[in-house]
Amino acid sequence: MPPQTRPTIADVARAAGVSKGLVSFALNDRPGVAPDTRARILAAAAELGWTPSLSARSLSVGRAFACGLVIGRSPDVIAADPFFPTFIAGLEDEFSVTGQALVLAVATPGRKEAETYRALATDRRVDGVILTDIRVDDPRIPLLQELGIPAVTLGVPDVASPFAAVSADDGVGIRLAVDHLATLGHRRVAHVAGPDAMLHARRRSESFQAAADAAGLRSRIVETDFSAADGARATAALLDAADSPTAIVYSNDGMAVAGMAVAQQRGIRVPEDLSITGFDDTEIGRWVHPALTSVTTDARGWGLVAARTLLRAIAGEPPARIALADPTLAVRGSTAPPPLAAD
Amino acid sequence: MPPQTRPTIADVARAAGVSKGLVSFALNDRPGVAPDTRARILAAAAELGWTPSLSARSLSVGRAFACGLVIGRSPDVIAADPFFPTFIAGLEDEFSVTGQALVLAVATPGRKEAETYRALATDRRVDGVILTDIRVDDPRIPLLQELGIPAVTLGVPDVASPFAAVSADDGVGIRLAVDHLATLGHRRVAHVAGPDAMLHARRRSESFQAAADAAGLRSRIVETDFSAADGARATAALLDAADSPTAIVYSNDGMAVAGMAVAQQRGIRVPEDLSITGFDDTEIGRWVHPALTSVTTDARGWGLVAARTLLRAIAGEPPARIALADPTLAVRGSTAPPPLAAD
Repeated sequence: MPPQTRPTIADVARAAGVSKGLVSFALNDRPGVAPDTRARILAAAAELGWTPSLSARSLSVGRAFACGLVIGRSPDVIAADPFFPTFIAGLEDEFSVTGQALVLAVATPGRKEAETYRALATDRRVDGVILTDIRVDDPRIPLLQELGIPAVTLGVPDVASPFAAVSADDGVGIRLAVDHLATLGHRRVAHVAGPDAMLHARRRSESFQAAADAAGLRSRIVETDFSAADGARATAALLDAADSPTAIVYSNDGMAVAGMAVAQQRGIRVPEDLSITGFDDTEIGRWVHPALTSVTTDARGWGLVAARTLLRAIAGEPPARIALADPTLAVRGSTAPPPLAAD
Repeated sequence: MPPQTRPTIADVARAAGVSKGLVSFALNDRPGVAPDTRARILAAAAELGWTPSLSARSLSVGRAFACGLVIGRSPDVIAADPFFPTFIAGLEDEFSVTGQALVLAVATPGRKEAETYRALATDRRVDGVILTDIRVDDPRIPLLQELGIPAVTLGVPDVASPFAAVSADDGVGIRLAVDHLATLGHRRVAHVAGPDAMLHARRRSESFQAAADAAGLRSRIVETDFSAADGARATAALLDAADSPTAIVYSNDGMAVAGMAVAQQRGIRVPEDLSITGFDDTEIGRWVHPALTSVTTDARGWGLVAARTLLRAIAGEPPARIALADPTLAVRGSTAPPPLAAD
């Protein structure tokens, strides 16, 4: 037996033997329907179990009761970067309580991305959106402004933005990691960075460079696409180089875990021969061996605050700029003093 | 500057100096609006940039152009069980192409869960839903039948179901893992299982027991809630016991990775002292050291097929029962012959 479909206005019209327009008029208490026809329509609607839909209610109150998250990378990132599922869990911590739906879409930078935002806004699928991975001179800011839909950005964009923003100071976290390594005695450090076109990745790189310089460390930066596979490749390149680092600061946990495996496969011990730090302090970093020293950004709490901030923006409050508590460094087993032979 | 909000019928009414009802009539080409009033309303609508919304279009075609995924565990699981983000990436592989929105909700078993499904269906937020973690005598099957909304179940329920189902034979995968361990020479094996109330977890346990018995192995089963933390606890309990196993078959990768770390922290070498297998072959299992031997279920492909099957059900096709290709075993570094001292 196929699943029953919900009765529509067309079903009611068929059952009552009248036009769809007349059903719509009768069900919406509009004038122009004869009393006996009206009674027949209401009886047919009741018998079929017809109920007014959210679509109809949305028309009157102008609300979709849904928020959108468009992930501007490939679908891979949902599976591979633990930040996203953790952040989504945080959004649901709020939305599952307030009864908002979370509309999730994946669209990569470029034309398809703009179309996706346009469809969400023009189709009124969502009342507002959350923008992640803010880019240098991000074209989504003017786009969403043009579409007239409330938004919250993760981090403050480098262009004028009319939107609320929820930010963590990534620089503080990276500085903590570099200072921790310097204090342990490391003199040669490297940073496996995210894409330079993403603002937060760029800020992490800049903070790494500044902190390494301030501590008088020799340093290198390798750019990646944030994927575990690219993190593994970058690690192999760093370990192959003459004068390889004794410590590597990764821009996310997934790359750090992959980098640790690359080292271990070569017989390089973590942390005795090589120290490793991650970023985001995600679940998986706590369950590898050695457990990962990582910058704690509270992706889950970030999701919760972003959800609440968006709901307030949708309710008409002025766009807020919210700074989350500064990141801390969770020191675990993956960092230690450098080997004695290191200069 | 606060973000602009989309013009609503109320805005058009205010601009034109008429009632909302009259605006609705005029914009919907209904009779009863004086020609000059109608012209004034259309001019105001054009000036404000008013466009018909998806809500309005949905009313006429009866479609939400969205599919729902209600995760019946806590928000934690999105962050902690790599199956879900990978499966969601697979759904997006299809939905991002066909322009469907994915509506994600989290609701735990019990009253709130039923309310969530009811709201999704009654509010017409989604055209169909995907059911995961099918339970013994699952109450969601009759609920969704009553709500008259198309659905796809992951796995075939143990109750009569009018819905399409996309299944993988988990039993084949567990049997491959047990046979692999038996061939390596293991004689004492354990299974860290998921919740017995979930059908797929129960089937994996039953298959483990049957395969261990068939191979003449001594065996134990420990039930968990599928979380990494519970997997770690179960592992500690197994390693503490007299006559501890030389190999552990885990019901998901997250628990296997956590269990591997528990062993390594105790100085128990994987795979020399203890062999470990996972389930789902997720990204993270490939990036730990040693890399995880795991049952390959292709969560990503499963998401893609589930999305396509649901879209066909929504289009009115009879509910299909689709069996995915049998799981295989990806043999990696976490399994080896047992230590010589083991009996």
